[in-house]
Amino acid sequence: MKIAFLGLGTMGLPMATNLINAGYSVRAWNRSPQPVEKLVTLGAVAAASPREAVEGADVLISMLADDTATLDTLVDTQALSTLKQGAIHINMATVSVGLATLLAALHLEHGTSYIAAPVLGRVNVAEAGQLQILAAGHAAALAAVQPLFDVLGQKTWPLGDRPEQANAVKLAVNFMIASAIGTLGEAAALAEGYDVDKAVLIDLVTSTLFAAPVYNGYGDAIAQERFEPAGFKLALGLKDVRLAMDAGEKANVPLPLASTLRDALIEGVAHGEGHLDWAALSRTAARRAGQA
Amino acid sequence: MKIAFLGLGTMGLPMATNLINAGYSVRAWNRSPQPVEKLVTLGAVAAASPREAVEGADVLISMLADDTATLDTLVDTQALSTLKQGAIHINMATVSVGLATLLAALHLEHGTSYIAAPVLGRVNVAEAGQLQILAAGHAAALAAVQPLFDVLGQKTWPLGDRPEQANAVKLAVNFMIASAIGTLGEAAALAEGYDVDKAVLIDLVTSTLFAAPVYNGYGDAIAQERFEPAGFKLALGLKDVRLAMDAGEKANVPLPLASTLRDALIEGVAHGEGHLDWAALSRTAARRAGQA
Amino acid sequence: MKIAFLGLGTMGLPMATNLINAGYSVRAWNRSPQPVEKLVTLGAVAAASPREAVEGADVLISMLADDTATLDTLVDTQALSTLKQGAIHINMATVSVGLATLLAALHLEHGTSYIAAPVLGRVNVAEAGQLQILAAGHAAALAAVQPLFDVLGQKTWPLGDRPEQANAVKLAVNFMIASAIGTLGEAAALAEGYDVDKAVLIDLVTSTLFAAPVYNGYGDAIAQERFEPAGFKLALGLKDVRLAMDAGEKANVPLPLASTLRDALIEGVAHGEGHLDWAALSRTAARRAGQA
Amino acid sequence: MKIAFLGLGTMGLPMATNLINAGYSVRAWNRSPQPVEKLVTLGAVAAASPREAVEGADVLISMLADDTATLDTLVDTQALSTLKQGAIHINMATVSVGLATLLAALHLEHGTSYIAAPVLGRVNVAEAGQLQILAAGHAAALAAVQPLFDVLGQKTWPLGDRPEQANAVKLAVNFMIASAIGTLGEAAALAEGYDVDKAVLIDLVTSTLFAAPVYNGYGDAIAQERFEPAGFKLALGLKDVRLAMDAGEKANVPLPLASTLRDALIEGVAHGEGHLDWAALSRTAARRAGQA
Repeated sequence: MKIAFLGLGTMGLPMATNLINAGYSVRAWNRSPQPVEKLVTLGAVAAASPREAVEGADVLISMLADDTATLDTLVDTQALSTLKQGAIHINMATVSVGLATLLAALHLEHGTSYIAAPVLGRVNVAEAGQLQILAAGHAAALAAVQPLFDVLGQKTWPLGDRPEQANAVKLAVNFMIASAIGTLGEAAALAEGYDVDKAVLIDLVTSTLFAAPVYNGYGDAIAQERFEPAGFKLALGLKDVRLAMDAGEKANVPLPLASTLRDALIEGVAHGEGHLDWAALSRTAARRAGQA
Repeated sequence: MKIAFLGLGTMGLPMATNLINAGYSVRAWNRSPQPVEKLVTLGAVAAASPREAVEGADVLISMLADDTATLDTLVDTQALSTLKQGAIHINMATVSVGLATLLAALHLEHGTSYIAAPVLGRVNVAEAGQLQILAAGHAAALAAVQPLFDVLGQKTWPLGDRPEQANAVKLAVNFMIASAIGTLGEAAALAEGYDVDKAVLIDLVTSTLFAAPVYNGYGDAIAQERFEPAGFKLALGLKDVRLAMDAGEKANVPLPLASTLRDALIEGVAHGEGHLDWAALSRTAARRAGQA
Repeated sequence: MKIAFLGLGTMGLPMATNLINAGYSVRAWNRSPQPVEKLVTLGAVAAASPREAVEGADVLISMLADDTATLDTLVDTQALSTLKQGAIHINMATVSVGLATLLAALHLEHGTSYIAAPVLGRVNVAEAGQLQILAAGHAAALAAVQPLFDVLGQKTWPLGDRPEQANAVKLAVNFMIASAIGTLGEAAALAEGYDVDKAVLIDLVTSTLFAAPVYNGYGDAIAQERFEPAGFKLALGLKDVRLAMDAGEKANVPLPLASTLRDALIEGVAHGEGHLDWAALSRTAARRAGQA
Repeated sequence: MKIAFLGLGTMGLPMATNLINAGYSVRAWNRSPQPVEKLVTLGAVAAASPREAVEGADVLISMLADDTATLDTLVDTQALSTLKQGAIHINMATVSVGLATLLAALHLEHGTSYIAAPVLGRVNVAEAGQLQILAAGHAAALAAVQPLFDVLGQKTWPLGDRPEQANAVKLAVNFMIASAIGTLGEAAALAEGYDVDKAVLIDLVTSTLFAAPVYNGYGDAIAQERFEPAGFKLALGLKDVRLAMDAGEKANVPLPLASTLRDALIEGVAHGEGHLDWAALSRTAARRAGQA
């Protein structure tokens, strides 16, 4: 099985590395050349363009920054239309449901398959091949690439035969994370409003009812007001919450908590916090209360 | 140390029981007589009125339904003004910060002490003496009753010397639970909008990022649409979210996520769901999307 | 018809004046003595206490600051219970529906009648006897006092036989004003975000679709950022929006726009703007956008 | 001055008619042929395609349904790139600020000018040549087309030299209308919650503080629950509120009232009300209160 891999960012690089280490033949392309060179030392073949990368590939895996980067890389370069008949494209990035629908249609027209398989897990989880893989697409295509998912992830969650189903679920999860952060922020502001150190409140909830990775991690950051380096930038969080709302609108699902979070995230960006970790969403609650 | 115990509901009864079992002398009163009788078989003394219960007591513990019940029982009956000089009143119920301020003032005037000590934990946790106790009040009074807290709880969280500080933190926690439920509800509606079974989304998040008691418990209820019997009624959840917002307003802390949740909870009550478990808050998200 | 008048603030004083000028016998009380003295020069009789004012009165009109002032003045002083059988109490202040219900019950018990008759119109309108009077209470009582309403107002709007109905409508109107201001504020922030002077947007809308007193008046204030002297303080606007929300909750009516406005008003108070005119609510929209 | 006119819908047709009646030479295209035929009887020349319409034109006026229709008609057909050097394109439709930016860039590259000039006013106002024209673009281009604006409108509001400024203001106005409707809906639900006929509340406010065209018109529709025929469809209102929010996000301006309205509009669509007049937004408030 010949794999083309487009997008060797912080997530893509360890994922491609794991595939090579599992014995797969990988031809890779990335906008900047350094990660490709790194991968070549492990046995990958460098491609000079997205189109060159996908020539003859059985499977194309893309892990690009967002909708625009995905369209630029796959459609504008004609990489997609270069794929051989019957090839499978696995898009593992977090993109909009609209893009999923569009790409699925383009692939159908071209005689190739499109699978959406966004993931849960940060870099260290990707390195360990322990991602949670949210997969949707035609059953036969999903079955064909399951061995790859087994290399990359701890568990694959089959979510349906329409790719956008996986994107909707991924966006729902990111909305939930934003809500957890936003809620911690408001609760912290309430505690501070009564001169209770927010670190005490966060210690209380994360050692009891909310003892979960999301609350522990973001709770710590909020308690210590440590928002750099950003694990996931606030501006990207805004993008994902907006994409969740767009997904909701397409399916007639109002998401008022998401709306409230989006407004707070915009406010954060307006106050120069877009580059901080999205735990900094908590600062908006404090600012509104005149605490910051 | 002679203890008066007012309010033997589902939480008060096991708490009073634990105190008796630990060797304390307890004189108890409850609006309905059955729980008192039960406690008497364990060694308690029954009181015919709140006022009779508190006569000569060193410590008064109250665990009454809400602000109104607390005022009716303690102030209107003159129980509070019957307390002997130097006695300590521990209010372990979830009440408003406004009531905490009022009661603290009344006690100060009367020469007694007021401690707010609301708890985290359901009935089984109360029975096991494993409550989390959120305590605020004068340091000397807190120290004096710590042995009682050690009987009732697993851990005492000292939150300051003003009683309302403990109430604010308790309300912040209940707001956080409401937010977790409401967020699960919106995320579930989004998944269902894309024909993904909400149980799959909930399984996904509760087995990974959100593996915490709150999400596991309420997630299960939402996935199975099992809202009866109510562990905590939606109408009471509405009350607590409102009290959190009131606490916010008193301290100039806007809580827009809480506001959004309050509106959804009112909508639930308007649709006859006030008696259901507050996990049923998720139904409002589904109803708004035309799914229910 | 002997009238007792309690509360001679900026609204109460011209209203009482108009009654005297129309030939009515008025006995008046106010917390501070100056306005009473002024009224006495016109022919009123000064009362040393609320209780003295109401003795022998056929009609009691109260125009007190808020729920607390009303309770303090009428109930704590026993003025209400001093009213003679068959007397009618007209409460023309903006109070909560909860207080209306409570006062109606107290009057029923005492053998007197309670009418809620909050008004629309500022001081100059009160002086001109051109208020809009929102009246609710028993039909016979309403009919009996209609001559007084004819002196005080341009038009009486009968809203039902339960006093709280008038309060609910008055609070609905104040919520609508808050929403108009808040909407102008957000629209202005959007225009400014594109370097369009908010004064131009406001000129555009108030000279076309929104050519109404509310938009003209508050639009001007917002365009010129002129928030002092306060016609109606932002902190009082917060109180009224909260009372509208409370009224909604009692009747199971969610008011999400009101909730959003309340949060913005709290934020204004948190930033030291509670004493400004509530047109300053627009500053919160600008501040959130990093424009202020 | 030779004018190409693309898009003869309910607004475009009377606008093109007025230009012909004022003596201008108009070549017109529309997706469906009937309105073109009608215009030809008045002296217009029919074009078989957008591209044919714009050949040799000095000014292109487009009044197309939305962003997609505009792009399809102007860019995909190469109409835009067929415009002669120095020609001016006036886009009078309500489109996104993003599209304005894109079209301005395409025109700059092509050596033509782009003016955004969305309008306020319904069909009868367009027929009367009394539109309010919100115009932005380079000053020289604006000056050149002012005679056309004088034919079409009562007043031209110059909003800046960047076309998206006019779109932002137009979207701000539409958001304000949505907010007025949504606010009337919530206020009406509150009145009804107290058994006060919403028609009475609406009569009260529209005859006093809110005596403005927007409130009179939509108030009437809400009072009588008359939502067909739709003057402006709820689904289009949703689109415009979303575009206002997008415009806000691009300029870092949170619009929480708009967010709240968007959620209510989505809920309306989810309940099959997207084809009704957007006054039907009021039904969502009633439905949430269990009144509908």
